[in-house]
Amino acid sequence: MGRWEPDALGRLQRAAMDLYTERGFEQTTVAEIAARAGLTERTFFRHFADKREVLFAGSASLQELLVSTLANVPPSAAPIDAVAAALAAAGDLLGQRRDYSRARQAVIDKNPELRERELIKLASLAAALADTLRLRGVQDPVASLTAEAGIAVFKVAFDSWIDASNERGLTQLIHDSLDQLKAITGGAL
Amino acid sequence: MGRWEPDALGRLQRAAMDLYTERGFEQTTVAEIAARAGLTERTFFRHFADKREVLFAGSASLQELLVSTLANVPPSAAPIDAVAAALAAAGDLLGQRRDYSRARQAVIDKNPELRERELIKLASLAAALADTLRLRGVQDPVASLTAEAGIAVFKVAFDSWIDASNERGLTQLIHDSLDQLKAITGGAL
Repeated sequence: MGRWEPDALGRLQRAAMDLYTERGFEQTTVAEIAARAGLTERTFFRHFADKREVLFAGSASLQELLVSTLANVPPSAAPIDAVAAALAAAGDLLGQRRDYSRARQAVIDKNPELRERELIKLASLAAALADTLRLRGVQDPVASLTAEAGIAVFKVAFDSWIDASNERGLTQLIHDSLDQLKAITGGAL
Repeated sequence: MGRWEPDALGRLQRAAMDLYTERGFEQTTVAEIAARAGLTERTFFRHFADKREVLFAGSASLQELLVSTLANVPPSAAPIDAVAAALAAAGDLLGQRRDYSRARQAVIDKNPELRERELIKLASLAAALADTLRLRGVQDPVASLTAEAGIAVFKVAFDSWIDASNERGLTQLIHDSLDQLKAITGGAL
């Protein structure tokens, strides 16, 4: 094992995002990311499997937060309200990093392979929410449908939040988006 | 150009599906598909770019049907009802081919690359529905949210329909699934 590097993970993430933004994801090498961070390639590979994973390193902890929050909502809550509580927790976490999230999304939007990876991540979040609802005793198809609807709400809220003209916080936008879905399915919109 | 082969497209699709089911998608070559169909590789490549596209050849016509149906719903319809009409038309089309759809889904479920391609197809259907809603004068985020909710309804209904134990038709299941989404967001489920 190499020596300990202070905040190596954060330095690598910032260096990678700067390079992806400046010259594009495809045109950036791991060697360049490590050099920009003042670290070795070996240190890079202790933290990330490849340059793509720098952009998706937060997915696992986001999924854990969604699942653990959903699992801990009181059993009396309706499935959609339990999912809304989990999404709000995710909104509170991600909402602290708007500049990073914007830069990341701009990189992802430019690359088909990264857009696919992002879709897979969202599908995996929906599957994890559905599994957790089933553990709460919610039957299918309600479990799947509530999870898919929750991810739709999250996705639309996230896109609004990334939009430079939007000044509302992510958690508030998730709340708005769920209210809009209720109005849409209720025939009011 | 080669000579005309009667129903070459259908023969290639059936041969491909038989081979994918018997020995797996990865283990099947274009040469084997052509041989099984009694046709040449050259004929295969006049119909499909590669062996993966045999499974996704219907996506473009499905998307066209969704978009044209949605565009032609009377303007007075609420966005969710307009999307429901488009999904019902898709249900009528796909619903005629349950055995094929089941075999196809079983092949896709076994292969991560095909699952990704299927997710991309669904995302592209959602984007096409949202674009068509905007052309109908529906503003964002309602357009995006209605389209995403519609695809969630479709996906859950399709999964139920593929399930061997389900005897309801696809169009009926899409209708059921939308009713369930309304009950979920209305707090009744």
